Amino acid sequence: MYEQVRALIERENLLDPGKDVLVGVSGGPDSLVLMDILDRLGYALVVAHLNHSLRQEADEEAREVQRISESRGLKFISEVKDVASYAAQNSLSIEEAARIVRYEFLFRQAALHKVQAVAVGHTADDQVETVVMHMLRGCGLAGLRGMQLCALPNHWSQEIALLRPLLAFWRDEIIAYCERHRLKPIFDRSNFENTYFRNRLRSDLIPYLERYNPAIKQVIWRMANVLAGDHLVLEQVIKAAWKTCVISHGQDFVIFDQLALLKQPVGIQRGLLRHGINLLRPGLRDIDFQSIERALNFTISPTQTGQMDLISGLRLSLEGNQLILADWDAPLTRGEWPQVTLHESIILETPGQMQLKDGWVLHSERVKDLVTAFRQATMNEDAFQAWVSTDNLSAPLLLRTRKPGDRIQPLGMKEHSVKLSEYMINLKIPRRVRDAWPLITTNGDIVWAPGIALAHPYRLKESTRQAVYMQLYKMES
Amino acid sequence: MYEQVRALIERENLLDPGKDVLVGVSGGPDSLVLMDILDRLGYALVVAHLNHSLRQEADEEAREVQRISESRGLKFISEVKDVASYAAQNSLSIEEAARIVRYEFLFRQAALHKVQAVAVGHTADDQVETVVMHMLRGCGLAGLRGMQLCALPNHWSQEIALLRPLLAFWRDEIIAYCERHRLKPIFDRSNFENTYFRNRLRSDLIPYLERYNPAIKQVIWRMANVLAGDHLVLEQVIKAAWKTCVISHGQDFVIFDQLALLKQPVGIQRGLLRHGINLLRPGLRDIDFQSIERALNFTISPTQTGQMDLISGLRLSLEGNQLILADWDAPLTRGEWPQVTLHESIILETPGQMQLKDGWVLHSERVKDLVTAFRQATMNEDAFQAWVSTDNLSAPLLLRTRKPGDRIQPLGMKEHSVKLSEYMINLKIPRRVRDAWPLITTNGDIVWAPGIALAHPYRLKESTRQAVYMQLYKMES
Repeated sequence: MYEQVRALIERENLLDPGKDVLVGVSGGPDSLVLMDILDRLGYALVVAHLNHSLRQEADEEAREVQRISESRGLKFISEVKDVASYAAQNSLSIEEAARIVRYEFLFRQAALHKVQAVAVGHTADDQVETVVMHMLRGCGLAGLRGMQLCALPNHWSQEIALLRPLLAFWRDEIIAYCERHRLKPIFDRSNFENTYFRNRLRSDLIPYLERYNPAIKQVIWRMANVLAGDHLVLEQVIKAAWKTCVISHGQDFVIFDQLALLKQPVGIQRGLLRHGINLLRPGLRDIDFQSIERALNFTISPTQTGQMDLISGLRLSLEGNQLILADWDAPLTRGEWPQVTLHESIILETPGQMQLKDGWVLHSERVKDLVTAFRQATMNEDAFQAWVSTDNLSAPLLLRTRKPGDRIQPLGMKEHSVKLSEYMINLKIPRRVRDAWPLITTNGDIVWAPGIALAHPYRLKESTRQAVYMQLYKMES
Repeated sequence: MYEQVRALIERENLLDPGKDVLVGVSGGPDSLVLMDILDRLGYALVVAHLNHSLRQEADEEAREVQRISESRGLKFISEVKDVASYAAQNSLSIEEAARIVRYEFLFRQAALHKVQAVAVGHTADDQVETVVMHMLRGCGLAGLRGMQLCALPNHWSQEIALLRPLLAFWRDEIIAYCERHRLKPIFDRSNFENTYFRNRLRSDLIPYLERYNPAIKQVIWRMANVLAGDHLVLEQVIKAAWKTCVISHGQDFVIFDQLALLKQPVGIQRGLLRHGINLLRPGLRDIDFQSIERALNFTISPTQTGQMDLISGLRLSLEGNQLILADWDAPLTRGEWPQVTLHESIILETPGQMQLKDGWVLHSERVKDLVTAFRQATMNEDAFQAWVSTDNLSAPLLLRTRKPGDRIQPLGMKEHSVKLSEYMINLKIPRRVRDAWPLITTNGDIVWAPGIALAHPYRLKESTRQAVYMQLYKMES
């Protein structure tokens, strides 16, 4: 076992012989064996013991781990934490609270002592139990692969690896090693780490499964091992897809390209959404199946409101083809859309240049060459420019924002008008930018809604004698 | 349910309304519901029933399915097969034999009737049982994803899809549907398909797991669903990697580029090896974990013999950087290496051109410009050409193949010679081409082993007065 761990560390390049390693030691057989092997391999160890204040013997155990460490000349550190209170305060199970408090302690000390890695004594049995536990609770590939031999970055650190050198060894081997090397574990495995649920798995469920396949533990261990490889490949693919599917992302938002996202296979779509959620909510451990499926459905066919409450205070919304995952109150990309703040309508000067918000400019000029303008207008496909006939205007052109009841008769629609609000929805103009959208009107009528439509009655005809050319554009900043 | 199946078929584009569908109907509730829904959706159905001759009531059941089909005006076909004998003859479990015989029947009839797809009535419960069964036996992603909604190509056909439109529906819903639509299943689910093992899962293991998580069936079903997406992504990645890692493949061999393969993440390496085995052994259902791991290990550090017995009569061997997966008796790529068939040594004519096998040519000429030749020889890095000093030859140059005890003193090795056989092993020359490798000798000594080494004593020196230039090359075919 000593030899196997040595070979493993070498083959996987897990540890640098010159740097310290922090080893978490409860005093149970697993961590004791780990400490023994790493010590004999010559690593400079910092032995870290957390007293969870959960058992009467806890203080005595801490002293015993200290005694063992010091008898070997190893640096020893310990801390007392009230796990039960922490669990109560944070509505966590004791097991979950102990896990968080313990790793927080180990990695805090690891940073303090500038070690290269934190090593913990999880065994193959722990691995099988973890996988079965994940499976019972519901999981995907990330859960089925179980714990990693080497996790870097991990939930606790970007720089200090979390190592589990005993992950390939069974409890029997650990016990045999203890006997062979005269290690005296100071308590057995029925400790606080082994809550009711985990104990039930070990003493009840796994033996039950062994009636179906006596090698079930090996089978599950191997499965996890193979799936870890598959998971790694998938992560790489998702990383590559991230580059083509994400337009931008920041502290509180990720903007996906909806169409690029939909071109990906569904497995990648799930991975990208999951990765996005992880970025914005790094603390969130369980992203449930249903949330991801709802997000997928929304991406394919968004709800009427164009947004949905996703998970943990995150909103998913669709603006044009931008699928935005963000905090509910993230400011997002308002500058992408033309917006104007007005208390009342203002007269549009022609010729003229008007500065709107975020670098948007409304430009207007009188048309001189009506023949050319007519040809250009007929072929125009850019909704942000318009040629407007001013032959029949009875009032000046005004710039204003929308009012309830606004209607528009889009170019080509000869018989009737439509509600501006519905037309905006159809064009997928985000709800939050509709109110401040600039509109050109006259006498209450919409003449041109830039980026949306020119009104049919104000189009340029061959017979038009007077016209204005208008353009709305965003200056490069 | 009717509506959901309709929507599913439309969304996933499973069926073309204009073409016939073959539906496998045992007479149990699942297949009866499937038939009913597809019939009501307006598909032209061919109802296929296999009489497995396993139960006393089998004949009567076949007649009943026929009666139901004909009362609906559906085409009906059936066949009688002795599954028990088939199982005995092929050393299969009854369940496995029934599965093979049944699908063979369904797809044979499907091809005959030119239908677009074979539809079978597997339910969500079947899916969960399948996943659990795979898990107990040991599996990877392919097994954990369970059965596919639409499998094309599948084990039985390259063109006719295997559909499972009820895979998202639970048994309870099936039974409720039967009652609501007054369908009368002619036998319940405790039929031959449900062998001891599967029955134990259903009546024993799954209820047991429900004590840990009452929603375990939903959890496993969803997990399979998500993993199916992951599997698809992985398959695509493996397909892409196949192009960069496979040099060539044929009926009985796949040649991987060892170095390209080793550059891939281990998940892809596993997938490529697995895919290679599948290509050569399409019938092989279970490729076990250990075989793949042994193959991976061999790829990293090949055995002394350069080959290993892999699985199902397949051999893995390494020749140079070519990792060859092949039938034990596949002829492979012998033409890549120079080979000669000789009964006795033959005199090498200088100048001369000698045709060896597979387009290899041994060319020789007298050296005219010894100064230039000396410079070229000093810088030569191509073991397939040589400048040989003929100053001290006491006998002619001969072409022959190796003999027991042959030794060579490779260029630069001033003091001693080595066994030719060991030297060939070190250079990773495949065992099977060593015996017919062409050698240039004189007086029993090896002068030049083309592609291997020039003998030190026969090298060109500054003082050399007579020399021969030789080259061994392969003509482009």
